[in-house]
Amino acid sequence: MTTSVIPGPIDPPARLLMGPGPISAYPSVLRAMSAPLVGQYDPFMTAAMAETQELYRQVWATRNEATVLVDGTSRAGIEAAITSLVRPGDRVLVPIFGRFGHLLAEIAERAMAEVHTIETEWGQVFTPSAVEEAIVRVQPTLLALVQGDTSTTMNQPLGEIGEICRRHGVLFYSDATASLGGNDFEADAWGLDAATAGLQKCLGGPSGSSPITLSDRAVEVITSRKKVEAGIREPGDPSAPDFVRSNYFDLGMILDYWGPRRLNHHTEATSMLYGARECARVLLLEGRQQVIDRHRLAGDAMLAGVQGLGLEVFGDISHKMTNVVAVYIPEGVPGDAARQAMLDDFGIEIGTSFGPLHGKVWRIGTMGYNARKDAVLTTLAALEAVLRRFGASVPVGGGVDAAADLYAGK
Amino acid sequence: MTTSVIPGPIDPPARLLMGPGPISAYPSVLRAMSAPLVGQYDPFMTAAMAETQELYRQVWATRNEATVLVDGTSRAGIEAAITSLVRPGDRVLVPIFGRFGHLLAEIAERAMAEVHTIETEWGQVFTPSAVEEAIVRVQPTLLALVQGDTSTTMNQPLGEIGEICRRHGVLFYSDATASLGGNDFEADAWGLDAATAGLQKCLGGPSGSSPITLSDRAVEVITSRKKVEAGIREPGDPSAPDFVRSNYFDLGMILDYWGPRRLNHHTEATSMLYGARECARVLLLEGRQQVIDRHRLAGDAMLAGVQGLGLEVFGDISHKMTNVVAVYIPEGVPGDAARQAMLDDFGIEIGTSFGPLHGKVWRIGTMGYNARKDAVLTTLAALEAVLRRFGASVPVGGGVDAAADLYAGK
Repeated sequence: MTTSVIPGPIDPPARLLMGPGPISAYPSVLRAMSAPLVGQYDPFMTAAMAETQELYRQVWATRNEATVLVDGTSRAGIEAAITSLVRPGDRVLVPIFGRFGHLLAEIAERAMAEVHTIETEWGQVFTPSAVEEAIVRVQPTLLALVQGDTSTTMNQPLGEIGEICRRHGVLFYSDATASLGGNDFEADAWGLDAATAGLQKCLGGPSGSSPITLSDRAVEVITSRKKVEAGIREPGDPSAPDFVRSNYFDLGMILDYWGPRRLNHHTEATSMLYGARECARVLLLEGRQQVIDRHRLAGDAMLAGVQGLGLEVFGDISHKMTNVVAVYIPEGVPGDAARQAMLDDFGIEIGTSFGPLHGKVWRIGTMGYNARKDAVLTTLAALEAVLRRFGASVPVGGGVDAAADLYAGK
Repeated sequence: MTTSVIPGPIDPPARLLMGPGPISAYPSVLRAMSAPLVGQYDPFMTAAMAETQELYRQVWATRNEATVLVDGTSRAGIEAAITSLVRPGDRVLVPIFGRFGHLLAEIAERAMAEVHTIETEWGQVFTPSAVEEAIVRVQPTLLALVQGDTSTTMNQPLGEIGEICRRHGVLFYSDATASLGGNDFEADAWGLDAATAGLQKCLGGPSGSSPITLSDRAVEVITSRKKVEAGIREPGDPSAPDFVRSNYFDLGMILDYWGPRRLNHHTEATSMLYGARECARVLLLEGRQQVIDRHRLAGDAMLAGVQGLGLEVFGDISHKMTNVVAVYIPEGVPGDAARQAMLDDFGIEIGTSFGPLHGKVWRIGTMGYNARKDAVLTTLAALEAVLRRFGASVPVGGGVDAAADLYAGK
């Protein structure tokens, strides 16, 4: 081994993260991340876990006892939900309206499900009747539907889907990673059986912890597949033949760890727990509806701003998430070089996109801590300057004026 | 929903964590955890990822290009290694000498492997010839062997196992969660094909990130099962029929994300990356061998101390890890109440154990930041006081004197 020079302490540059996420965390969340550790079964730790569960019940708008964190990034929560709810060979229906629909389908395929998909054009959402028609045709065990797909900025309405699923005896799962906290989400009122998220979008924290909530119906399915780990198994503990094909993502074991039995599974990621707890805490201190309204206001201002700069917005605006907007990169402007100039010259990050939209649109987010007037106006001022330096013809002050007017209620 | 009272900011009590882990993190690791976030593809972020890879190559003593982090707790790394290396039906051999051997077997079973185990009494380790005999008999694809099993405190010698595996065409995987950083580990010299760890033991960080390193031979197996995710797949991208039955733990995709192609997979857990980087940084600044020596000294002092208190040590001391010791709970002393008194009256955590040892031994750790003289002596002074208050007859000053003498070189 050649011993290389050891780098200095981590010292990130100043960044205003206005992309599709991750975004700049709330300062108090960063402070929580550095709190001292305690033991796994310290009464303080188990109390902090219980508090976190109760906080997320409020964030999700649910009474579900089974409301916990999965230790991993948002797709860890997705995989835990799908792998625990779906037996090999079960039919899963995934309506796809962007990249993350493809991800749900892929995860279900890896879980050995029989995956059926319906697709709509990127930039659109599904009507409830389109979903119901597919449910009737496919007769799935599980409907897996993204709420907000950051790849297209669309927000799939979920309000009527739960009732449809219930009527047809289908479990209803939604991933709300991109949307939770900045858009309406009503786990119980909408009839969700499972929902997952991440911290790095509207919740204003770092990636690495995935909030999840499960209805009693979902817990029943999961419990029927329960297996207690060899090495801590006691006589009488169950070991179902159709056990979940993952130890880490077996929600039955994860619930036993968070539940009163506190059966050892993983060692809870203490710092991420502290961060997740603080994300929910700042949200609820401000007020759940107030935070959604703040996201809507910032999103409307950013939308007015980019339109004020003469940029064309991608997709069906009436179904856009509050917290992100996609704009076509103007003809003649090199998309990646302009993004780089935003970062290098202004310290502001905006995003590109995936698949059919790669290189065609930029995505600009207004999420969590950064769903703020100063963040919106600063981004628009910088974007105007960068567009002009790359030769685009943009109205002087067009972005800032439109956004500031909207904030002023004009 | 009844809206409950919103708790205050996280404010953990003072704790000296002297159990089997998690342990108190290095202060600089906690500071790193609160550094501001940057974007996923920010040049600063990709540079921090590359630095972290290079730091862990030194920690693992390897030249493996494929040295990365898995975003999850230590068992996430274990599941990623086993699930990516083992095809359904492959034979896996797991020598079990404690709880975590059972865990490796369980994870391999969930990955649909044909699992074969050999077991030895808790408190012992395997001879190379016992492992070789089983390899010859089972003809496995993979040998999965824990290095340090915290449940028994034993440190399985690995030095000769790699050569045996190579000779029989077997992939060699070891989990070093409990041991890495505090005990010798030589990934290349010992012929490891895969090794995994966690931060919450000798590396002195929080749980939630799992360092992993993979030999070229392991990467070949993983690459042969490669599948690029739908939604970001391009023409010509592979999609092997025997793909890994997990998206999150598909090391082929994780390597593509960490590698030059930087193919989007999860969103790297930024704060955990900062923490993992700092864990390796403080270790290498002090010096890899120096840190192991510090663990050995603290472990020897704690061993002398508990023996000086008249406690009987569990297991084969000649194969004990440096960083944890198990002692029989003295006759007449209520084990859990005494541990509780250590915590409540002195703010010091020591551990219980699992399975056959549950309620019979305490486990006392000296790891990472807490592999320090003051931590050792304080723990022994408190333990003496607690034992006496619970009616045990203990030599006055016997623990502190023995440990202090050892530190003084007497």
